[in-house]
Amino acid sequence: MLGASGYTGGELLRLLADHPSIAVAAATAEANAGARVATLHPGLAAAYPDTVLTALEPAVLDGLDVVFCALPHGTSQEVVPELAGSVGHVVDLGADFRTGASDYERWYGEPHRAAELLPEFAYGIPELFREEIVTAKHVAAPGCYPTAATLALAPLLARDRVEATGIVVDAASGVSGRGRGLSMPSLFSEADGDVRAYGLCDHRHTGEMEAALGRVAGRDVSLLFTPHLVPTTRGLLATCYARPASTGDARSTESLLADFRDHYAGEPFVLVTDEPPGTKATLGSNALHVTVRYDGRTDTVLAIAAEDNLVKGAAGQALQCANLLLGLPETTGLSALGVSP
Amino acid sequence: MLGASGYTGGELLRLLADHPSIAVAAATAEANAGARVATLHPGLAAAYPDTVLTALEPAVLDGLDVVFCALPHGTSQEVVPELAGSVGHVVDLGADFRTGASDYERWYGEPHRAAELLPEFAYGIPELFREEIVTAKHVAAPGCYPTAATLALAPLLARDRVEATGIVVDAASGVSGRGRGLSMPSLFSEADGDVRAYGLCDHRHTGEMEAALGRVAGRDVSLLFTPHLVPTTRGLLATCYARPASTGDARSTESLLADFRDHYAGEPFVLVTDEPPGTKATLGSNALHVTVRYDGRTDTVLAIAAEDNLVKGAAGQALQCANLLLGLPETTGLSALGVSP
Amino acid sequence: MLGASGYTGGELLRLLADHPSIAVAAATAEANAGARVATLHPGLAAAYPDTVLTALEPAVLDGLDVVFCALPHGTSQEVVPELAGSVGHVVDLGADFRTGASDYERWYGEPHRAAELLPEFAYGIPELFREEIVTAKHVAAPGCYPTAATLALAPLLARDRVEATGIVVDAASGVSGRGRGLSMPSLFSEADGDVRAYGLCDHRHTGEMEAALGRVAGRDVSLLFTPHLVPTTRGLLATCYARPASTGDARSTESLLADFRDHYAGEPFVLVTDEPPGTKATLGSNALHVTVRYDGRTDTVLAIAAEDNLVKGAAGQALQCANLLLGLPETTGLSALGVSP
Amino acid sequence: MLGASGYTGGELLRLLADHPSIAVAAATAEANAGARVATLHPGLAAAYPDTVLTALEPAVLDGLDVVFCALPHGTSQEVVPELAGSVGHVVDLGADFRTGASDYERWYGEPHRAAELLPEFAYGIPELFREEIVTAKHVAAPGCYPTAATLALAPLLARDRVEATGIVVDAASGVSGRGRGLSMPSLFSEADGDVRAYGLCDHRHTGEMEAALGRVAGRDVSLLFTPHLVPTTRGLLATCYARPASTGDARSTESLLADFRDHYAGEPFVLVTDEPPGTKATLGSNALHVTVRYDGRTDTVLAIAAEDNLVKGAAGQALQCANLLLGLPETTGLSALGVSP
Repeated sequence: MLGASGYTGGELLRLLADHPSIAVAAATAEANAGARVATLHPGLAAAYPDTVLTALEPAVLDGLDVVFCALPHGTSQEVVPELAGSVGHVVDLGADFRTGASDYERWYGEPHRAAELLPEFAYGIPELFREEIVTAKHVAAPGCYPTAATLALAPLLARDRVEATGIVVDAASGVSGRGRGLSMPSLFSEADGDVRAYGLCDHRHTGEMEAALGRVAGRDVSLLFTPHLVPTTRGLLATCYARPASTGDARSTESLLADFRDHYAGEPFVLVTDEPPGTKATLGSNALHVTVRYDGRTDTVLAIAAEDNLVKGAAGQALQCANLLLGLPETTGLSALGVSP
Repeated sequence: MLGASGYTGGELLRLLADHPSIAVAAATAEANAGARVATLHPGLAAAYPDTVLTALEPAVLDGLDVVFCALPHGTSQEVVPELAGSVGHVVDLGADFRTGASDYERWYGEPHRAAELLPEFAYGIPELFREEIVTAKHVAAPGCYPTAATLALAPLLARDRVEATGIVVDAASGVSGRGRGLSMPSLFSEADGDVRAYGLCDHRHTGEMEAALGRVAGRDVSLLFTPHLVPTTRGLLATCYARPASTGDARSTESLLADFRDHYAGEPFVLVTDEPPGTKATLGSNALHVTVRYDGRTDTVLAIAAEDNLVKGAAGQALQCANLLLGLPETTGLSALGVSP
Repeated sequence: MLGASGYTGGELLRLLADHPSIAVAAATAEANAGARVATLHPGLAAAYPDTVLTALEPAVLDGLDVVFCALPHGTSQEVVPELAGSVGHVVDLGADFRTGASDYERWYGEPHRAAELLPEFAYGIPELFREEIVTAKHVAAPGCYPTAATLALAPLLARDRVEATGIVVDAASGVSGRGRGLSMPSLFSEADGDVRAYGLCDHRHTGEMEAALGRVAGRDVSLLFTPHLVPTTRGLLATCYARPASTGDARSTESLLADFRDHYAGEPFVLVTDEPPGTKATLGSNALHVTVRYDGRTDTVLAIAAEDNLVKGAAGQALQCANLLLGLPETTGLSALGVSP
Repeated sequence: MLGASGYTGGELLRLLADHPSIAVAAATAEANAGARVATLHPGLAAAYPDTVLTALEPAVLDGLDVVFCALPHGTSQEVVPELAGSVGHVVDLGADFRTGASDYERWYGEPHRAAELLPEFAYGIPELFREEIVTAKHVAAPGCYPTAATLALAPLLARDRVEATGIVVDAASGVSGRGRGLSMPSLFSEADGDVRAYGLCDHRHTGEMEAALGRVAGRDVSLLFTPHLVPTTRGLLATCYARPASTGDARSTESLLADFRDHYAGEPFVLVTDEPPGTKATLGSNALHVTVRYDGRTDTVLAIAAEDNLVKGAAGQALQCANLLLGLPETTGLSALGVSP
């Protein structure tokens, strides 16, 4: 695993510790190379009492079945080209391989530096793109916001229940979504007691959501995404608003709930709930909880999804994809149960 | 003051302790009658070392200049008719006198039991209805959500910048907004780490927002309101979405910010900010912070307001109204500074 | 399982869902009989989609291998006598069977109503009393505070490193330690931002600690216990102070750490750490992290232990004991890894 | 004011904004020079809409009545010598001038660089050292831990109720006590849900406590201090343990409470409470709440104090001292009421 000192890397180490078919051959870090896992992640000391993070040397990874990259933004483009040919599969948890080259340049403001590899990457939401993942060489695991918003809206767009424009995604994330880097807004004394929006109108995850939902819908999707920071470590809630399509049968909460239940039937990690889902029930779990409503008074459809941003929104979904790449049962090493309260 | 054992009542006691022109003549409670203020609100012990809450006996209130009612839902309708004639002014912090009788019945599912008094109440948002408040006999102080949403959207609707339908108010409140009553969702272990929506599609504050904004707009306003509970004690953020009016000049963030600055010029308790406001900066303060954006990509206007739900969203605004009723400077006893971090 | 609607019961259900050798035959509740597990514990919906809590009828439990009792204080004394003969083993998570009859009466202020059963119960800290548990009929799982304090002090007292009197246990617990009952101090708005001591000088867990440590020490132990409530849902930290024994080798941090490492060698759920342990690393885990120091300046020994009060401090340790009673590997269904951050 | 960008500096700005007799002539910062107060402290925007922080130029401060220094550790020694002669008074909120030169060197591991100025500084706990402060040239405002521990233990030591050795101070602080600097343990995702001890046995505030209490006791005091970090922004609780003196009348909670009430009679900022004090009642307030107990079972005295670490533990007490230096009423600009919940 590359990038084992951050929160996503730590969460992957936690999940892999109990995985019966994947052993961690190497765990790298940059500034923290030389540090023990047990020092950086004291909760993992029992599983990795002696493991030391090493600096990245691609040769060490030669021949591994799968390499997870949980690297700072932009780093995967540098590293993956060196690895892609010599390892079985890459599961990249960064944004580098999630969209096409032009979308990447549009939202990230710079040309993609490894665009030739983009076709080898499937977008890693198994519930929507399982067939592609199974046959792909590599996987780009989605961001936490796109996972929640896309799974909340997919049944509506796939079934033409709502219009593909005028969608609003109003979402809130816990502070761990900002990563482990040192920055003022990540300080406890700043975030505790604070609720605020950020990245107004131009958050980069917008493009990822539109691209994924566009493929689900079979047409262009346009949405406005407003992320908020709320005072919890983990947990992400996406509250999505859309206008019912003139055709279709979106004008009943009951029928929409039935649509969702049908759409996600048999999915081990998507639970359609009658009640509004809360993030707390998903802590430590790879499950996403989702519900839907039709409001007749304003003729609006609401879909609301809750997840643990570090599990279904990051490390858990990456492992779910890795299981698919390796031909393992998709749920191996993953729990759908939340640690609550 | 009636209802001094809850959070709103306690906050009023805090503010009144430093008010140079209002002395607390009586503080009542129901279940907590006989208890000391210092026991129920240990933070107020220095100001009320010996004050004991008493059961409500209307005769005791005879001739008082102003009576604040911070009572459980529905109780004001019982109590106010007995008081209204014998005290100078009533400032009711409950929902009973905020809207007309028909709106009340629609949203609260029962007929109003003191409808004849409704005309005597002004709706207590001074920044929008100051003239009415000054000349009113009584004031119905608004709820925490309506205060934030109405002040966020008022400049847009008053100036025809946005359409009066299709508005979405997506808001989040701290747990103190649920009051001090014992209920499972108010428990620390339930709310800590949890983010969830509630009251989907039919929250009662919707009617209050539509009524207040309708008066500001001069036409019917229709909006969908989705409240969320987030793990903080205080703080309320309203993120509002609206479609630009075809006429008017809403399609520029700069011009919208100028509209807001103009609309709230000279207001001591509304701060128009360039950056997205956070609730933390409003803790303990009667100030509401608000910003606005135009998103050209999706042709949408966003307005975001932050407040302390117990101050500008309840006790502080009630005191602001009482100052107006009593002919005192509006800011007396109120601070616009937040206790942060 | 008896008492499945509270936090301890819910945590047991979570652990048992992944246990390969124990299936939940029945889950009871009192006020919540008839409710679905998925409603009371939404995080467990994936494992118990249809399970409904039932009222307690002892006949239903006949012949079960093990019955867990996570009942309100004092209830086990009523229930266990009806069960004890007809089920394989009882693991009681309440205080009823943790100490002798006289200690019970002293600390709980009432005579024990099932004293004849007390000899059948072993005290359930496997790291200290494994031999007794293995051969016992039933187990009384210890409280959260006694688990942490006893495991922190045991190596010192067992090896005569400290005096058996003058010990101070200063501990802090998350709010879930108060249970799921509705009470003012458990409200989010009361507990958030608050740090306070409670139960000064006479907290009932004192007797349990002294009894357990007395057996470890082979002599009477006397200690002063001060619990604190801190604003976190889970997590318990015990900071213990003791005077070095005049004989023995307690006057070096290095030798004390060596004592602890020796004492807990091979224990899967006790980690001796060099650094001061934090509760966050134990979330969701059955591991207790502990360290020790000698302060030469004041000639004092400190031992500090951290645990998840609902796992090692309650449900996890109960399951650890049940594994022993049933002859299963002690770690079955239990993780030593914390979910962090 | 020097050092206006941090939490202590911000809190001072908040208090000074409402101070009738002190106007802020200059506010400096180092890295944040050029930034607006309203940007760094959005909650203060209403009071300082246009104030910009400037780099420190001592000449600008010439002739000011009082200069507050809220500077990073060790900086005051550099700065104060340049100011001390040209301003009326210095109130230093750092550790530089709190103890004698030898104690400083002992606990801070380096010689004091402005030892000649130490005699000009009084130690700023007015309730214990008011006479000295009133006549002093400058004041060294104490740290947050020493304020709480010293005020909790002072009545006991001043009246010979307890022994001067064998004292334990077990204290917990909110994360704002770590300041606004960027560091891993200050991150929300690290501190949220975590309770841990730190600075075991050798925290630098120990020396400050021993020195202050030694002066109160009239003999050497020795204590062991264990600070803890708990997940709240503000709030500090000190739980102190001491052995009753053989002489004296310490062996009754009632008599000890009477001692405390007598000792702090007339003090506007010390409240002696019957119940264990909580930090939440002190938020935003300059009041310290304190109680005391005698435990006959273990023959121990407990004293427990709660405060807001940024107010009574820092900025508020500094202002209290400044009022004394300037001959103003001691309570000017300070509130004894907590913002709670």
